[in-house]
Amino acid sequence: MRFAKLAAQPCSISRSLVLLGDRWTLAIVKQAFFRTRRFEDFLQALGISRALLANRLRRLTDAGVLEKVEYQSDNRPRLEYRLTEAGVALYPIIQSIRAWGDAYLAPDGAPLLYQHRGCTGQVRVDLACSDCARPVSARDVEVLPGPGLRAKAPGRRAAVTAPRRR
Amino acid sequence: MRFAKLAAQPCSISRSLVLLGDRWTLAIVKQAFFRTRRFEDFLQALGISRALLANRLRRLTDAGVLEKVEYQSDNRPRLEYRLTEAGVALYPIIQSIRAWGDAYLAPDGAPLLYQHRGCTGQVRVDLACSDCARPVSARDVEVLPGPGLRAKAPGRRAAVTAPRRR
Repeated sequence: MRFAKLAAQPCSISRSLVLLGDRWTLAIVKQAFFRTRRFEDFLQALGISRALLANRLRRLTDAGVLEKVEYQSDNRPRLEYRLTEAGVALYPIIQSIRAWGDAYLAPDGAPLLYQHRGCTGQVRVDLACSDCARPVSARDVEVLPGPGLRAKAPGRRAAVTAPRRR
Repeated sequence: MRFAKLAAQPCSISRSLVLLGDRWTLAIVKQAFFRTRRFEDFLQALGISRALLANRLRRLTDAGVLEKVEYQSDNRPRLEYRLTEAGVALYPIIQSIRAWGDAYLAPDGAPLLYQHRGCTGQVRVDLACSDCARPVSARDVEVLPGPGLRAKAPGRRAAVTAPRRR
């Protein structure tokens, strides 16, 4: 599978896409942010097949994006899927996809509003400079070698690691 | 193809994923931001098959994310692919994927730095409230019906529309 070779590239976008660049994976993650947690609820919300859903939930769990948590139903233990810290950290990806869709695939306006709770505003995705705090566009960016350039890439099945503190 | 049904959902994330939620599509878009424009250069940079690359470039062109532009090579007209305005607007998605990969899939540090040109800082992705400008996390968000909720969804093969001015 050639796509998996992207994971070996010294590029955080390619590595992430090996997990996320999939027809269903980000749809499942989106659903998790909508507080869907149970297998049957994912099934119903997405209209995905059982086998495919089971496979993608396992991949996301193996990668450390979802975790299985036991809960009680009819006095029997059952499992549900919850976003881990690494999973919750996918929210800017979900929101930037949402913002693009609202701008370019919603000629009649946004189907849903993602409102700041208790406020009147909506979620906005901003790219800014970590130092001068000015807005940054693609044209303002220079790509330079980073500290991890020569490091060995994590394998295809690598789980997420603890986030680096900056 | 059940996945295509997602396009009919009143959800800008689902609609976008029908185009973008694909193993190669965002990798191609990333490469376009690295200023790759020619078929052979995409081929070499990504290690994708010719047929698959041709298919995905056509989909992105049909969708209005890339456009074909003629250039001269050896006195012959040739075509290259450039990001349209809607394509350039995908940059926050690419950067939020990059930021997640740097945080969770780069234990030895970022392989590449996306530096603010002429400055010392890096690109940062922020979610903020459009009104109060405070940082917003997934927990701070309330999802409400929007103006486009009852509108007819664009078809599966819909091209991007002009962005709505806010």
